[in-house]
Amino acid sequence: MTTKYHVAIAGATGAVGTEFLRLLEERPFPLASLKLLASARSVGKRICFRGEELPVEELTSGSFEGVDIAFFSAGGGRSKAFAPAATEAGAVVIDNSSAFRMDPAVPLVVPEVNPDDVLWHRGILANPNCSTILLLMALAPLHRLAPVRRVVVSTSQAASGAGASAMRELEEQAAAWLSGDPIVKEVFPHQIAFNLFSHNTAIDATGYNEEERKMVHETRKILHEPDLLVTATCIRVPVLRAHSESVNIEFAGDRPPLDAIRDALAGFPGVRVVDDRENNLFPMPLDASGRDEILVGRIRDDLSHPQAVDLFLAGDQILKGAALNGFQIAEILIERNAVKRQAA
Amino acid sequence: MTTKYHVAIAGATGAVGTEFLRLLEERPFPLASLKLLASARSVGKRICFRGEELPVEELTSGSFEGVDIAFFSAGGGRSKAFAPAATEAGAVVIDNSSAFRMDPAVPLVVPEVNPDDVLWHRGILANPNCSTILLLMALAPLHRLAPVRRVVVSTSQAASGAGASAMRELEEQAAAWLSGDPIVKEVFPHQIAFNLFSHNTAIDATGYNEEERKMVHETRKILHEPDLLVTATCIRVPVLRAHSESVNIEFAGDRPPLDAIRDALAGFPGVRVVDDRENNLFPMPLDASGRDEILVGRIRDDLSHPQAVDLFLAGDQILKGAALNGFQIAEILIERNAVKRQAA
Repeated sequence: MTTKYHVAIAGATGAVGTEFLRLLEERPFPLASLKLLASARSVGKRICFRGEELPVEELTSGSFEGVDIAFFSAGGGRSKAFAPAATEAGAVVIDNSSAFRMDPAVPLVVPEVNPDDVLWHRGILANPNCSTILLLMALAPLHRLAPVRRVVVSTSQAASGAGASAMRELEEQAAAWLSGDPIVKEVFPHQIAFNLFSHNTAIDATGYNEEERKMVHETRKILHEPDLLVTATCIRVPVLRAHSESVNIEFAGDRPPLDAIRDALAGFPGVRVVDDRENNLFPMPLDASGRDEILVGRIRDDLSHPQAVDLFLAGDQILKGAALNGFQIAEILIERNAVKRQAA
Repeated sequence: MTTKYHVAIAGATGAVGTEFLRLLEERPFPLASLKLLASARSVGKRICFRGEELPVEELTSGSFEGVDIAFFSAGGGRSKAFAPAATEAGAVVIDNSSAFRMDPAVPLVVPEVNPDDVLWHRGILANPNCSTILLLMALAPLHRLAPVRRVVVSTSQAASGAGASAMRELEEQAAAWLSGDPIVKEVFPHQIAFNLFSHNTAIDATGYNEEERKMVHETRKILHEPDLLVTATCIRVPVLRAHSESVNIEFAGDRPPLDAIRDALAGFPGVRVVDDRENNLFPMPLDASGRDEILVGRIRDDLSHPQAVDLFLAGDQILKGAALNGFQIAEILIERNAVKRQAA
């Protein structure tokens, strides 16, 4: 008999939580029970799941009794506050926040890239930053083909990365702009409609913002390459839910031919190559929205460096950038019989 | 007595032509007369200039009798067809199209960068591509500070680069999206509202599109550095009239300190450094719109390369990216007494 699992979602009413629910409905999953958790102000809401109306309960330290797998997507503060209670109660936590990502005791996993890392968890596994996951989906197959030395990446990040309210703000600002009404800024510090701006996370002494630092450090951790050279510029753009990235990848030695690079990408699970030069059809966030796959294209020689290749990618920030990747971590934990933590 | 000049604008009803008219009204310019030229379908329109209503005349080979300075911004086809007639009639042509930019007999000028190149014109001077001009405004002062070896640039280009109709298309698509109506695509091949896509110019055997090739080759010509290494990825974004660029600049030798780089940028005419880390305020296309200056910020160490620096810039595509730069070419021709072509 298949083992079935008791699942809790902390942050069940958010953009990522909603997609996690949809994945639980659509993909085969040995579900014993489902608990929806959110902040006090969502208590009383009911969410339809597999034809049943499930109540939203308040996320507290006591929420995790009997839970096997707890998916957290309620912000870093709540992860820090409640993940210990969840692991204490015996649940494995798959955390979508940045709270534990760089903790050496916590695996940071993109299932297509470093699945074996799920095996050494001690109760918490971290879902990487969305921009990092998308980058890794293109970078990992190339790094397997031939070692990569340096990455220069510029992102174009959708509003969804700041939550469902940011997506609404983009649409509301666009409507206000078009009708000549004043622009209201609540989620973002700057107008996002018909504008773009440097990612509004804190900048440290290096001059990099937090999003850029995540791309540098998480990439190294996931690839187990502490010396990989990465520079990132992260920009927020007026797009709803898929991120795009312009990526320059320099190999350590001779660069594999373009055909080999294209084949490595096309053969990597979760990647779709969209690279139609004749019809000028390449990855676009609109095409990536609602899709599980990362779209990769504009694969070409870097005319400025014989060991480098340029490419452009787009991927759904809420799916592979968050909920889907977290869900896949749960799937692989189950497949590897690793839901229960290993002895320390 | 100051010499006064007879000026013609070919493409007077377009987005760039309109700005050129505004510049002629706002800046001191020794104007003797002004002739507004456009395609046959604009004939009959009247445009207000310095309180007078000027008629729009049809652009023909006979339009340039008595004209000293002809500003062309009516597309490459019309430049090729009518610029020879203008020079034949004795006018100097300042051409905003790509028709003559890479012609070795035609100076390609950003007045702050290579003003002396105006002196060797033979009747035609070319205004560089908008993305190239903006890049050069940040690149040139750094290249003067210490030789630059390689540039990796990713652009986020506004709709205005495809003309006033493209700006309308962006707003109309946004309105349609918000009201759930079908998206009409006439100017761009892909939806631009709430989306972005690889610049839709033709891709050649190198895999670079035309816009990217312009950035590579025009940059080299303007800097007189035929071996400068440049790779560019050009992306169209849902912004109305200012382009942004994420730029990684690698120096040939030791990199100047950040302070020296910041000072070189701040001291360069036409550049404004916007680099407020504490308040997370950096160049944004909305702030650059309608401004003459290029905004440059996010000036920081490239953590992946000791000889490189990262920066981010934004500039008005219609102003410094086109009309203003062309107008400045005219100003410098007058200042250097070089309106009349030099003997061959």
